[in-house]
Amino acid sequence: MILAVDVGGTKLAAARVSPDGAIVAARRAATPQDAGAETLWQALCDLIDPLSGGITGGITGVGAGCGGPMAWPSGVVSPLNIPGWRGFPLRARLAERFPGVPVRVHNDAICLAVAEHWRGAGRGVADMLGMVVSTGVGGGLILGGRLVDGGTGNAGHIGHVVVEPDGGPPCGCGGHGCLEAVARGPALTAWALAHGWTPHRPGASSGGPGTTAEGRGAPPGGVGAAGERAPSEGFAVGGDYREERAVTGRMLAADALAGDPVAVAAMRRAGRALGIALASATHLCDLELVTIGGGLSQAGEPLFGPLEEALREHARMGFARRLRVAPASLGQEAGLIGAAALVLAGDTYGEIPL
Amino acid sequence: MILAVDVGGTKLAAARVSPDGAIVAARRAATPQDAGAETLWQALCDLIDPLSGGITGGITGVGAGCGGPMAWPSGVVSPLNIPGWRGFPLRARLAERFPGVPVRVHNDAICLAVAEHWRGAGRGVADMLGMVVSTGVGGGLILGGRLVDGGTGNAGHIGHVVVEPDGGPPCGCGGHGCLEAVARGPALTAWALAHGWTPHRPGASSGGPGTTAEGRGAPPGGVGAAGERAPSEGFAVGGDYREERAVTGRMLAADALAGDPVAVAAMRRAGRALGIALASATHLCDLELVTIGGGLSQAGEPLFGPLEEALREHARMGFARRLRVAPASLGQEAGLIGAAALVLAGDTYGEIPL
Repeated sequence: MILAVDVGGTKLAAARVSPDGAIVAARRAATPQDAGAETLWQALCDLIDPLSGGITGGITGVGAGCGGPMAWPSGVVSPLNIPGWRGFPLRARLAERFPGVPVRVHNDAICLAVAEHWRGAGRGVADMLGMVVSTGVGGGLILGGRLVDGGTGNAGHIGHVVVEPDGGPPCGCGGHGCLEAVARGPALTAWALAHGWTPHRPGASSGGPGTTAEGRGAPPGGVGAAGERAPSEGFAVGGDYREERAVTGRMLAADALAGDPVAVAAMRRAGRALGIALASATHLCDLELVTIGGGLSQAGEPLFGPLEEALREHARMGFARRLRVAPASLGQEAGLIGAAALVLAGDTYGEIPL
Repeated sequence: MILAVDVGGTKLAAARVSPDGAIVAARRAATPQDAGAETLWQALCDLIDPLSGGITGGITGVGAGCGGPMAWPSGVVSPLNIPGWRGFPLRARLAERFPGVPVRVHNDAICLAVAEHWRGAGRGVADMLGMVVSTGVGGGLILGGRLVDGGTGNAGHIGHVVVEPDGGPPCGCGGHGCLEAVARGPALTAWALAHGWTPHRPGASSGGPGTTAEGRGAPPGGVGAAGERAPSEGFAVGGDYREERAVTGRMLAADALAGDPVAVAAMRRAGRALGIALASATHLCDLELVTIGGGLSQAGEPLFGPLEEALREHARMGFARRLRVAPASLGQEAGLIGAAALVLAGDTYGEIPL
């Protein structure tokens, strides 16, 4: 049995995975907020111990996905959304707890791409990019049927392909005009609010007092639909807040589907940015398939129409026209499945000793 | 002995290459212009026969680079600059002439990248892009120490990474805003002429009659410095014309070094476009090194200063900052060396059977 672990800023997840990749048992818990390194580690141990049958009960390998950045393959992690872990030796700690078995740690976006290639929409495809478009925009690259790590384990950062070189919005990476800065959910909702979007929240009256005004001045994603939180609360706070932000992204998508012109324009802006980045990616990597998962992948035609339009406009050579864009097919468990694959299919997804 | 072949629109080259990669003997000839398929093939045979000692004299493998596009790995070529070859079965014809030995054909830009990795500035580097910036902008990608072909042999098309998504110049690929449309030599000189550049040609009086005016209306690169050819003669003509155009590109570089403000602005435009494309490339592929060869790689600070500036502006994450940009270190023979490596180092550069 493999132990798979998925560490995110909102939740921790772990599973026992059989050698053929089936999840036998899984557990989830909220990620402790504002916690120190050891508190976080203890929460993870509390989650995995019942699954692993104590220290080594039948576990023959451990695969873990974690938010980046991280030193790779050493698995020393500093996830942006978990301030308590800065330079935390996740791989070494797991190896200490499960001595004598292989332990691999990789970026969570890589695990999602690996999962789609191993068991999802990319099965059997030689050259693909597995993307996630959500609070962030990330991905993982499979070329020649094998995971591409890049020298530091950071290949696949499609979110930082430049799509608006001049005057594009500032990005969390320190650059500007990156795909992520344009197309991540919070950037989209902020853009829409700043352009006068009034969310039509199901079960609430639309256009509540102050919504639009607060939207204008707020940081990206920093305003709940009904304005319950002040912009000064900013970004990197607890799970409730994230949930609320996700609802807002979904509301924007729903409003775009319903024909709200600002919501449509916001989705169009993101869709075109995605199409441009994918044209660049396929020219460079000669891809057959891109899978798109994450919250925004549910946005339908208002996002995917402009995406296809921009992609076809920029990717004109024969080899580039073959690129297919498909929804990711694995749901919430993709991260765990990909983490397990790091070990169960190490020849394809494990690090190569050079 | 390996026979290496390099087929371009201007010249044909071939060499005997020893197992350790040294060129033992080489021959060059002009590519017959406006010739049919069999005339071109005969010209190639006339070039290689004295090197191969008749039909099979001691040749244990054949590697060929050829202008794209091509079907790969079958090596059915349709080089843009050789109109007489459309769907020409170059690999099959070479295999017929050298029966029983391995024959490999790849894109000429790929061969240049392979050469730099095998014997040039990229020796020992795991993750690199080998670029050429000249009449076109092309490249080849080495990841995890191995050539990346992509599913159709077209990985490495850095020239079609999008750098000006909105309103960028039309590109020969059918798209717009591609790096190549901005930074290829003829685009640069055309841009400079259209913005009032008067070439300071060594040994000729500057600002000859009509130069600037013709430049404005001309197709990219379609005007010799002294206006000897009418714009209507267009682009894809003989070797003299190419030589003249090359001189023009060099003159632009020389004028930029001498401080001509329009020439400086043209180089800056190209340099920034290169830097933006390389930021996107390293975010996606996690590269350690980019080598730049081709005519424009000699342009010095006016090109490489803005390149570094734009790259550092957009590539801010730790892993992306490690990217080094270096000049290609092999000269004119790079194409032959890379072609030989397709066979001599087939484990690294030959196609992978999937």
